[in-house]
Amino acid sequence: MKIGFVGLGQMGSGIARNLVKAGHEVHAYNRTASRAEELAADGAQVARTIADAAATGLVFTMLSDDHAVEQCVFGEDGILAALPRGGLHVSLSTISVDFSRRLAEEHAKRGQEYVASPVFGRPQFAESAQLLVVAAGPERAVQKARPLLEAIGRKLFVLGSDAPLANVLKLSGNFLIASMLEALSETFALAGKSGIEPLKCLEILNNIFQSPVYEIYGKIIAEERFEPPGFKMLLGLKDVRLALAAGEAAAVPMPLASLIRDHMISGIARGMGEIDWSAIARVVAEDAGLGTQKLKVKG
Amino acid sequence: MKIGFVGLGQMGSGIARNLVKAGHEVHAYNRTASRAEELAADGAQVARTIADAAATGLVFTMLSDDHAVEQCVFGEDGILAALPRGGLHVSLSTISVDFSRRLAEEHAKRGQEYVASPVFGRPQFAESAQLLVVAAGPERAVQKARPLLEAIGRKLFVLGSDAPLANVLKLSGNFLIASMLEALSETFALAGKSGIEPLKCLEILNNIFQSPVYEIYGKIIAEERFEPPGFKMLLGLKDVRLALAAGEAAAVPMPLASLIRDHMISGIARGMGEIDWSAIARVVAEDAGLGTQKLKVKG
Amino acid sequence: MKIGFVGLGQMGSGIARNLVKAGHEVHAYNRTASRAEELAADGAQVARTIADAAATGLVFTMLSDDHAVEQCVFGEDGILAALPRGGLHVSLSTISVDFSRRLAEEHAKRGQEYVASPVFGRPQFAESAQLLVVAAGPERAVQKARPLLEAIGRKLFVLGSDAPLANVLKLSGNFLIASMLEALSETFALAGKSGIEPLKCLEILNNIFQSPVYEIYGKIIAEERFEPPGFKMLLGLKDVRLALAAGEAAAVPMPLASLIRDHMISGIARGMGEIDWSAIARVVAEDAGLGTQKLKVKG
Amino acid sequence: MKIGFVGLGQMGSGIARNLVKAGHEVHAYNRTASRAEELAADGAQVARTIADAAATGLVFTMLSDDHAVEQCVFGEDGILAALPRGGLHVSLSTISVDFSRRLAEEHAKRGQEYVASPVFGRPQFAESAQLLVVAAGPERAVQKARPLLEAIGRKLFVLGSDAPLANVLKLSGNFLIASMLEALSETFALAGKSGIEPLKCLEILNNIFQSPVYEIYGKIIAEERFEPPGFKMLLGLKDVRLALAAGEAAAVPMPLASLIRDHMISGIARGMGEIDWSAIARVVAEDAGLGTQKLKVKG
Repeated sequence: MKIGFVGLGQMGSGIARNLVKAGHEVHAYNRTASRAEELAADGAQVARTIADAAATGLVFTMLSDDHAVEQCVFGEDGILAALPRGGLHVSLSTISVDFSRRLAEEHAKRGQEYVASPVFGRPQFAESAQLLVVAAGPERAVQKARPLLEAIGRKLFVLGSDAPLANVLKLSGNFLIASMLEALSETFALAGKSGIEPLKCLEILNNIFQSPVYEIYGKIIAEERFEPPGFKMLLGLKDVRLALAAGEAAAVPMPLASLIRDHMISGIARGMGEIDWSAIARVVAEDAGLGTQKLKVKG
Repeated sequence: MKIGFVGLGQMGSGIARNLVKAGHEVHAYNRTASRAEELAADGAQVARTIADAAATGLVFTMLSDDHAVEQCVFGEDGILAALPRGGLHVSLSTISVDFSRRLAEEHAKRGQEYVASPVFGRPQFAESAQLLVVAAGPERAVQKARPLLEAIGRKLFVLGSDAPLANVLKLSGNFLIASMLEALSETFALAGKSGIEPLKCLEILNNIFQSPVYEIYGKIIAEERFEPPGFKMLLGLKDVRLALAAGEAAAVPMPLASLIRDHMISGIARGMGEIDWSAIARVVAEDAGLGTQKLKVKG
Repeated sequence: MKIGFVGLGQMGSGIARNLVKAGHEVHAYNRTASRAEELAADGAQVARTIADAAATGLVFTMLSDDHAVEQCVFGEDGILAALPRGGLHVSLSTISVDFSRRLAEEHAKRGQEYVASPVFGRPQFAESAQLLVVAAGPERAVQKARPLLEAIGRKLFVLGSDAPLANVLKLSGNFLIASMLEALSETFALAGKSGIEPLKCLEILNNIFQSPVYEIYGKIIAEERFEPPGFKMLLGLKDVRLALAAGEAAAVPMPLASLIRDHMISGIARGMGEIDWSAIARVVAEDAGLGTQKLKVKG
Repeated sequence: MKIGFVGLGQMGSGIARNLVKAGHEVHAYNRTASRAEELAADGAQVARTIADAAATGLVFTMLSDDHAVEQCVFGEDGILAALPRGGLHVSLSTISVDFSRRLAEEHAKRGQEYVASPVFGRPQFAESAQLLVVAAGPERAVQKARPLLEAIGRKLFVLGSDAPLANVLKLSGNFLIASMLEALSETFALAGKSGIEPLKCLEILNNIFQSPVYEIYGKIIAEERFEPPGFKMLLGLKDVRLALAAGEAAAVPMPLASLIRDHMISGIARGMGEIDWSAIARVVAEDAGLGTQKLKVKG
C-alpha cells in the first residue's frame, strides 16, 4: 500500500519502520529531514513536503501536540489541502478531544476520512511493533486502516465510529498510569521514611498487583532512575491537562488528575520538566522532607 | 502444634480452618460462641475464654480494629495476662502502626514475643489459603510462626525484626488498592459521560495493566455490583485513616490518601458505609452529575 | 473627553453611564443595539459599529471573556484596525494573562497604546461608581486613562507598566474570594451538621474577620439565596481556570484553585451553572449528605 | 469571686491576670510553679495542686491539648475528684469535640457543671482582655461563668446548652483562618512569580476584604516574618486535625482542611514545626520552585 507518514520522532520513526517492514510504500516526512533519510536507508521514500506525503491518499501523523498537528493539517500546503477527496488521515498523536473532533469535522467537510488512532507504549514498543492501538472512526475508514494498524502493534481495539472517543480512551489510560505513579510515590515516601527498603516494599506490592506496569515503574522509582526519560514530565503534564479539559467539557470533576497536575507543575518548577514523568516521586519525597541532594537533574 | 486463635469473623474463620487442616490443635475463641462451635465441627477445640486460647503459648488474633485488639490483649484475663513468659502473640489484624508498636513493647516487657503479620486477600482467599502474608518481628519468633503462616497463604514475606513495619506495609498496600479505585472511578466517569461503554473501556485498560486487581475491581465498578460487600467502605475508611496517621507520624504528606478519605466520608454520608469500598465510584459518578437513581443502597 | 465604549452588559452599562455623568462624550456600542439606545437616553451617543467606537481614539472594552474580546479587537473592522495610531485601548474585562499580553504586543506593533484595567465589584457597585480599579500599562497611557478610571470607581491602583500584571492581580483577587466561598462552605457544612445554626455561626465568624466580603457572602450561603446570581458559577469557573492557567505558565501549583475548580465543575454537572457561584456551598453540602431537596435550581 | 485557674502558658497567664484585675480571688496553678509565683506578684494566690484550684468550686483550665486536659481532669487528685458537687469547670482550651463531650458527661455524672468556652485571639489579646469568647453549656452554668468570661474578652457569644458546640465553633474559626493562609500563600506565589511585589499586591487585596485578619497575616507572609511564632505550625496542625476529626464524626468531607493538613505536615517535614503557622506560605513557595535559601529556620 502506498502511504504517507508525517512525524518521525522517537515514536514515529519506529512505527514508520514497521510499516516499511510490512511491505508498504512509505513516503515519510519530517521537519528535520535527516530523520527521513535515516528511514530511507531502511526502504522508505523521502517525502519532501507534507503535501507530498498527503498526496498518497492515506497519511499517518505522529506529532507531539495539538499545535504541531494543527500546523501540519491546517497550514499552507497542509494535509487538508493536499489529501485527495476520499483520502484518509490516520492520527496517531495524543491530542485533545476537542481538537480531534475539529479534525473529524473539517475532513468530513472536504469529503475526506479521518481515524483517530492513538497508541500506548514506550518508544521501544514502537520499535518492536508491540504497541497497543486504539482506533475510532467511520467503519469503512477503520477497515481501510486496519492492516496498517495491526502491523504496528500487538493488539488493535476499535472503539466505534466517533473518532474523538479514541482520544478520550488514550487520555484515560495515561491518567491511570499517572495515578499509579502518584500512588507509588506516596507509598514509597511513607514506607521509606518508616524504614522499609523500597525494593523490598516493591517486591511485595508486585505480588499483589502482578502487573508489568507496576513492576517497570516501581523499579524506576525505587532506584530513582529518571534519566534518560522514557516520557518527559512536560509531556505527562500535557496529557493530564488534556484529560482535565476533557473532564471539564463533559462536566466530570477529576480531583486525582488535579492533584497529579499540581505535582507535575511543582516538578517542573523544581527543574524536572525534561526528566521522566515518574520523577513525580521526587516531588512527593521532597514534600516529605527527603533530601533534594539525591536528585540528579541535569543543567 | 497447639495454638490459640481469637477472632472468627469472615477472615479469621477461614484462616483458623486452614490451621486445623494443616494438622494443628487449634483452640478457637470468638465473642459470639456459635462461630467457634462451627469450627469445632471441622476439628477445632472451643476455647471458652481468651485466656484459654492464650494459655496454649502461641496465640493468633484476627480482629477488626485497634479497639477490638486492645480489649482482647489488655482487658481483664486478656492475652497479656494469660500468655506464658516466652509465649508468642501473632497479630494478623489490620491495626495502626502506633498500636502495633505498643503491643511490641508491652509483650517485650513481660518476656513475651510478638509478631505482626497482616494479610492481603478477600475472604475467599482466606478460605482457600491463598492469602499474601507479611510478617515482621524478632527473628526467632518469626521462625516459630513460619510454618503456621505458610499454611494460611500462598506466599510469606518477612520484613525484618521491627514488627510495626509489617503494619506499615499492609496499610501501604491497601492505600495502593484504594488509589486504584479512585483512579478507575474517575476514568469510568470521564469515559462513560463521553460515550464509551464501561466494560469496553475496561477491556482495553486491562490490556495495559494486565493485573488481576484491576480486572476484578474494574468489573465490579463497571457493573456497579457493590453488594454484597467484599470489604465495607467503613473498613476502607479506617485503613486510609490509619495510613494517613502513619504518614503524619513520619511527617509524610499523602494528598492522594486525603482525597480518598474525603470521598469515602462523602460515601458514608450518602449511605454507602456498609457496601463495598469500590462504591467510591458511585461518589465520583454522582459528583459528575450521574444519576443517583442507579445506586441501590439498602435501607 | 470623547471616548468609545464597547460592551454594555451588567457591568459595562453601569460603568459607561458613570463616564457620561462625569461629562464625557461616550460613543457606546453593544452587539444588541437596544442596550446602547437605553444609554443614549442618559446622554450617550450610539456607536453603530465597533470601528465607530474605536475611531474616537480612546476606547474601553468590557466583555465576558477572551473570545469576545478577540472578536471585537481582531475581527474585521475591529479595534486594532480602526483605532488611530497613538490611540488608546483600555480593557476592563477579566481575561487571561496570556491574551492580555498578546493585546499589549499587537497594539504596540501598530503604535497604539494598551492599558489593562480590570475591576472588582458586583453590578450594583458598577452602577454606583464604587468599583475597585486596578490598572497597568505604559505610564503615559495610564495617565491619560486616569481621570476616566477614577470616575468609575472608589479607588484606583496602578500596578506598573506591564499591562498583564493587572490581569494577574484580578485573577488573584477572584481566586481569593472563591477560596473564601469554599472555606465558608465547608465550615457551614460542619457546623450545620453538628447542630449550630448557620446565621449564629456566621455572626461569630464575622466578629473574627470583620470583613464585608465575609458578611455578604456568608449571609447568601447561610440563607441559600443563590438566585438571582450576582456572578454565575460558569463565570466563576472561567476565572479559576484562568488563574490556574496563569499559575501553570509561571510554574506555580495552586492546589486550592484546583479544588475549587473541581467543585465548580461538579456544581455545573448538578445544574448550578447559571446560579450564583457561592452555590459551591450546595456542592459541599450535598457531598456531606445534606439533602438535595433544599436546592431550588431552575429548569 | 473565689476561683481556681489551671494552666498559665502564653494565653492562660494573660487571662488569669485579667480575672485578678477584675477583683476575683484567683487560685492559680501551673505545672512549672514559677509562673504561678509571677502571677502572685500581681495579686493571685498560688495553688499548690490542681486539687487546691478545683476545691474553690469554680475552676478554669487553659491547656495545650486533649492529653494535657485529660491528665489534669482525670488524673489522681484531678479536677473530677476535687471539684465539689455543684461545682463548675470552665474549659478554655482548644480541644477535640469528642473529648469535650466526654468531659460534659463525666462532670454530669458527678453532679458537677461543665462549660466549654474556647477563645479566639493571639497572646497579646489575652493580655489586653480583647479575646473573642464562645461559651456553651447548661444555661445556669453559663450564667454563673458570664461575668468572668466578660472580664477576659471584648465580646462573649453563647451558643446554647450543648457544650461541645463551642468547640466545633472554635475549630471552625481556626479552620477558616488557616484557609485564608493557604489562599494568601497561593496568591503571593502566583503574583510574586509573575512579577507583582507582595506588599503592593496585599495593599490592593486589603481594599477588597477590609479585614484586620487579612491585613495582619498578609503582612507576616509578604514580609516572611514567621519568627517568633504567634501560633506554632505544630499547634495549627493539631487544630486542623481536630476539625477533620469533627468532620469525619459528622460525615462531612472537608477537602480544603485536608489540603491544609497536607501542607502543614510538609512544613513540619521541612523543619517549620516551631515557627508560625503562616509559614505554610513557605511550603507553597517552595513547591513553586522559589528558593529555600530565603527561609530562615532555627536549628
